[in-house]
Amino acid sequence: MKILVSDLETFCVEAMRHYGIRDEDARLTAQIMVKIDTWGIYTHGTRQLRALLKNFPGGRLDAQASPEVLNQGLAWALIDGHHAMPFVTAHQAMTLAIEKAKNTGIGYVSVLHSSHFGAAGYYANMAASENMIGIAMCNADPQMTIPGASGKVLGTNPIAYAIPTSENKSVFLDIATSAVAASKILRAKALGQSIPEGWLVDKDGVATTDPGNFPSEGAMMPMAAHKGYGLALLVEVLCGVMTGAAMTKDQPSWVLDVAGENAPKANQGQMFMAINIGAMMPFENFEQRMGTLITYIHDAPKAKNADCIFLPGEMEWDKHDAALQDGLTLPPDVVESLKGLAQDTGITFPAG
Amino acid sequence: MKILVSDLETFCVEAMRHYGIRDEDARLTAQIMVKIDTWGIYTHGTRQLRALLKNFPGGRLDAQASPEVLNQGLAWALIDGHHAMPFVTAHQAMTLAIEKAKNTGIGYVSVLHSSHFGAAGYYANMAASENMIGIAMCNADPQMTIPGASGKVLGTNPIAYAIPTSENKSVFLDIATSAVAASKILRAKALGQSIPEGWLVDKDGVATTDPGNFPSEGAMMPMAAHKGYGLALLVEVLCGVMTGAAMTKDQPSWVLDVAGENAPKANQGQMFMAINIGAMMPFENFEQRMGTLITYIHDAPKAKNADCIFLPGEMEWDKHDAALQDGLTLPPDVVESLKGLAQDTGITFPAG
Repeated sequence: MKILVSDLETFCVEAMRHYGIRDEDARLTAQIMVKIDTWGIYTHGTRQLRALLKNFPGGRLDAQASPEVLNQGLAWALIDGHHAMPFVTAHQAMTLAIEKAKNTGIGYVSVLHSSHFGAAGYYANMAASENMIGIAMCNADPQMTIPGASGKVLGTNPIAYAIPTSENKSVFLDIATSAVAASKILRAKALGQSIPEGWLVDKDGVATTDPGNFPSEGAMMPMAAHKGYGLALLVEVLCGVMTGAAMTKDQPSWVLDVAGENAPKANQGQMFMAINIGAMMPFENFEQRMGTLITYIHDAPKAKNADCIFLPGEMEWDKHDAALQDGLTLPPDVVESLKGLAQDTGITFPAG
Repeated sequence: MKILVSDLETFCVEAMRHYGIRDEDARLTAQIMVKIDTWGIYTHGTRQLRALLKNFPGGRLDAQASPEVLNQGLAWALIDGHHAMPFVTAHQAMTLAIEKAKNTGIGYVSVLHSSHFGAAGYYANMAASENMIGIAMCNADPQMTIPGASGKVLGTNPIAYAIPTSENKSVFLDIATSAVAASKILRAKALGQSIPEGWLVDKDGVATTDPGNFPSEGAMMPMAAHKGYGLALLVEVLCGVMTGAAMTKDQPSWVLDVAGENAPKANQGQMFMAINIGAMMPFENFEQRMGTLITYIHDAPKAKNADCIFLPGEMEWDKHDAALQDGLTLPPDVVESLKGLAQDTGITFPAG
């Protein structure tokens, strides 16, 4: 179904108000979620609002709380999310990283006591909008095995970056450190299809092409074996170990078992970095050199049967432009989630 | 063949003196190269000294030059390597990143006009030795394709990190952003074996299991397809675009065509980052939390037929201990390269 960006934002704001989220926080969160949808990253946009809001009534998140800078230095800060709306906390963290980078060249801000913040790429892009390189990552509850193990050991701990260009559209990447998204495995399972080797291990930790009983049994494989394991571990250290956030199996799922009175408080960790290009070289010089690199990549000889080569984020910005012009074409699972949220709150879903 | 660490270092120092490298620079470079060998990373240790030294007589590198800080701010610096011995430049860059991080929490130093610096993991480990998290990377001449392209577009642009632990042995990772090292493809080719899909594309950019005419035709594939492409591109931006170093195809190989009078000067770019843990949390607290994470990983349920789970770097430190105790067991290709260097310089290779 088609929906205007502004209508979807308004609906999300109203749904959040129903759960007691402050107006300002609801507007910021809706704006971030809908922007993620415009990039076509529907798995991490408004589809998640319903599940996230269920964290508030049980006390896992706190609509009245605000994030607080716990400690800071010239180029770094640690923010306690205090279980406030995680999108607001993440936004504040990257804003502070950008401020630090203005003074020192690089800003590093990490967060504890937070939860699902949508797509890490949104926050990386905040830095790109300020002519800086942004990096964002978070730890998560275990879904992924590691070489030698049989079960779920680490989260799919994502890494995102965004690099500004002269065309006001960043080069940006937002990837899980798993081989593929869980949704790809679940889709194959639903269709009764096998999956390529390298995506999944079975309950014994052996690579399998059978989606089998995932996710109740088996575990996702890291991208590129020990390489993805190593990168996921770095994310766990920066976001978990160094923040005081929950680590690995102590990280509660933000989707399952969130409603109980005894559900543990959210305690995800996140890291946001901003690298101030203009401090290090004239920004015009950077833009020109980025232009050279982009042209080189676009003009590289094409593979047989390939028409064009995309930069990271290029397809996402194309979708963004189309969404602003024509409205969003929401996939069925997103519509279903939003209609469920409309039912939960008694707010009318704007169309469809 | 077996050789003592100290004997190998002495040989390397003497060989470098023959090429006019200053004593202090030769000692530092030898120490770094041999340490890389002790980790078992023989592809990036003393095996490379012979090829690197050939860069000096032709003027691609300059034995009399010294690196210089071109520009700096509170948390960052840009170093002009001035084509000096690249190991010395990289060492100075990470030393400065660590100094910056002491004051600001994080230090970011990048380099232009440099060349092959061995394994990036060595420099990341310099930060770990100072109780900081170290990150190091460099761009390189194209060997790898990208999705949609048919030829070599980006270097295998490596990323390394090191994280200190309470046991004085870092958790460290040093990976190319390609699916595998070129040496694995070349070994299969030499043995007449096929290779797994995902390693190589043929001259048309189509994935192949035939090592065929690589490296003269075809190109390595990035790890995890678009994910490795995206990470390699970030490395290219941080090390190439933002430093003023040569980018992609303008990056001359440091191995091929180095001897001609008209060979272009080396101009590799590198980036070194240090994150000062102690500024952000009590280091004892970090050590304790890292210990919890390490135990959790070691104790994870094992996969069928797996005896143990290694942390990134753990196998390397085991090899390091054995090498210090029993000497290094150099692989045949390393011995061959060192004996060639002995011939080039007229210096006696200590054993074998």
